[in-house]
Amino acid sequence: MKTRIGILGYGNLGRGVEYAVRETNDMELTAVFTRRDPASVTIQTENVPVLSVNEILNWTDKIDVLVLCGGSATDLPVQTPEYAKYFNVIDSFDTHARIPEHFNTVNEAALASNKTAMISVGWDPGLFSLMRAYTSAILPNGKDYTFWGKGVSQGHSDAIRRIEGVADARQYTIPVDEALEAVRSGQNPELTTRQKHTREAFVVLKDGADPEKIRKEIVEMPNYFADYDTTVHFISKEEFDANHKELNHGGFVFRSGSTGKDHAHKHVIEFSLKLDSNPEFTTSVIICYARAIKRLADQGQFGCKTVFDIPPVLLSEMTPEEMRSHLL
Amino acid sequence: MKTRIGILGYGNLGRGVEYAVRETNDMELTAVFTRRDPASVTIQTENVPVLSVNEILNWTDKIDVLVLCGGSATDLPVQTPEYAKYFNVIDSFDTHARIPEHFNTVNEAALASNKTAMISVGWDPGLFSLMRAYTSAILPNGKDYTFWGKGVSQGHSDAIRRIEGVADARQYTIPVDEALEAVRSGQNPELTTRQKHTREAFVVLKDGADPEKIRKEIVEMPNYFADYDTTVHFISKEEFDANHKELNHGGFVFRSGSTGKDHAHKHVIEFSLKLDSNPEFTTSVIICYARAIKRLADQGQFGCKTVFDIPPVLLSEMTPEEMRSHLL
Repeated sequence: MKTRIGILGYGNLGRGVEYAVRETNDMELTAVFTRRDPASVTIQTENVPVLSVNEILNWTDKIDVLVLCGGSATDLPVQTPEYAKYFNVIDSFDTHARIPEHFNTVNEAALASNKTAMISVGWDPGLFSLMRAYTSAILPNGKDYTFWGKGVSQGHSDAIRRIEGVADARQYTIPVDEALEAVRSGQNPELTTRQKHTREAFVVLKDGADPEKIRKEIVEMPNYFADYDTTVHFISKEEFDANHKELNHGGFVFRSGSTGKDHAHKHVIEFSLKLDSNPEFTTSVIICYARAIKRLADQGQFGCKTVFDIPPVLLSEMTPEEMRSHLL
Repeated sequence: MKTRIGILGYGNLGRGVEYAVRETNDMELTAVFTRRDPASVTIQTENVPVLSVNEILNWTDKIDVLVLCGGSATDLPVQTPEYAKYFNVIDSFDTHARIPEHFNTVNEAALASNKTAMISVGWDPGLFSLMRAYTSAILPNGKDYTFWGKGVSQGHSDAIRRIEGVADARQYTIPVDEALEAVRSGQNPELTTRQKHTREAFVVLKDGADPEKIRKEIVEMPNYFADYDTTVHFISKEEFDANHKELNHGGFVFRSGSTGKDHAHKHVIEFSLKLDSNPEFTTSVIICYARAIKRLADQGQFGCKTVFDIPPVLLSEMTPEEMRSHLL
């Protein structure tokens, strides 16, 4: 029997989950739940119901893993512990500083209900976290570097859109080539925030807005831009729609360390992603971990998990024997 | 109490294990066992005994994990199942085609003795296998590429040294830049063996040897060189000793795949290693997995494991809470 996937929230992530399930042979999409009017939501898969979230508790025995596709700021801190009372759940909670707190509330709920939950799945947190964990355990005498981009930061784009006079905006985070090269060469440089990334914003103004005032407001915005060199381009709505609609992203994780007598031998480990679609890649990671969650739940391993807890053997459609023969 | 590590076989790998243990806070080297005369073996650590392998069974209660540092051709197929009768063991068995067979004999021995064993730990097999497993599960609609080098292939160097008239030889495997770039760009090229790697050999001749004859013998050697473009350099012993003594290596694993509607969005995942010392890096991986083997043995999880079976949480000196706070 296929693993039955439910989706809660049908935006970019929900749509990504729907596509990712299609790439598997062992999962199927069972239902999509939305807080909107279900009649207003059209999905890509035939014969799968779109339902109001108010009906979700009627589906507890028809869904093996519920994928929570809400936002980290306000949705997931409430939804993940709440739905872990009724379902095996998985989310992409990405507010790094609040992960321990979120883990604890979800773990408590899942343990109480004998469900398996997983939080913070995607590429960062997610794959990048895995790389940091593996490589820092392998090279204890070393240093980690994480770079993001080139890609769209939705948080920074939103911050610009909230400025009065801005009609639309897209912000790209760009790793600085010189910094990447210094790390890649094994120099273990100390890098400031400004030395690691630059930011580039493409902004569509409302009629009558003052570009200089808005440029200043962007580049001086605390937390978001003040610590970076930021370039602001004002463009037309037509150019914006033609060139700045894709949610591409990516990044790099490095571990640079040394071993042996007098630490004479250097080693550089580099992991990088170049992604045409951030939400589709994130949900591809989520769906492969949903397979593991179903397997852990079947084994009676309840409570909250992260990528650190999951052995890779649980992620694959292959049997352990096939993995040893073909991948090891 | 620290995890007590034993080493069987004190060559490049044994020495690497010794250095890797020093980088940890939770492990210690307990004893080194050798098939040579113990008096002829000098190790880097004070107050650690070097003993004949004939004494090893007196140490079953003093060693938590025995690291087997022999070769894959003849040593490990015998040693790993044999010592899994008495110790938790870990090896770096790297004959890919014979892994299933080796797994089965080791698994049987370890299950019978209530020991935990692990085979094929290092970077390929090992870290590269992990990358293939994670990324193929995440992007099922995609293609894997593994490149090795630039680095010293000890197997190919040995093959050249066996030719009559050769005094010494070192062979470098070099990935072809154009092939790397084609993969990196997401083109999913079909690549022949010849298109992926070139080989470069540095050879010291014995007096009176015929360089042209030896060059021909190298480049036409079946399995090892015939399918590659190979360049042979004849150099003096002095140049050889000055420039070709390091065991540097490295390589790349790519997964290139696509997602979403009509598979329109491409993604490229790239993992690479640049290693000054192949044996020291290999043993750094082994020692971090030795930590996991001790933990699994303490939990009563016996039998043979591979990197696919080990959750990353078992590899780190950090607690799970620290990992979630600092690495996720």
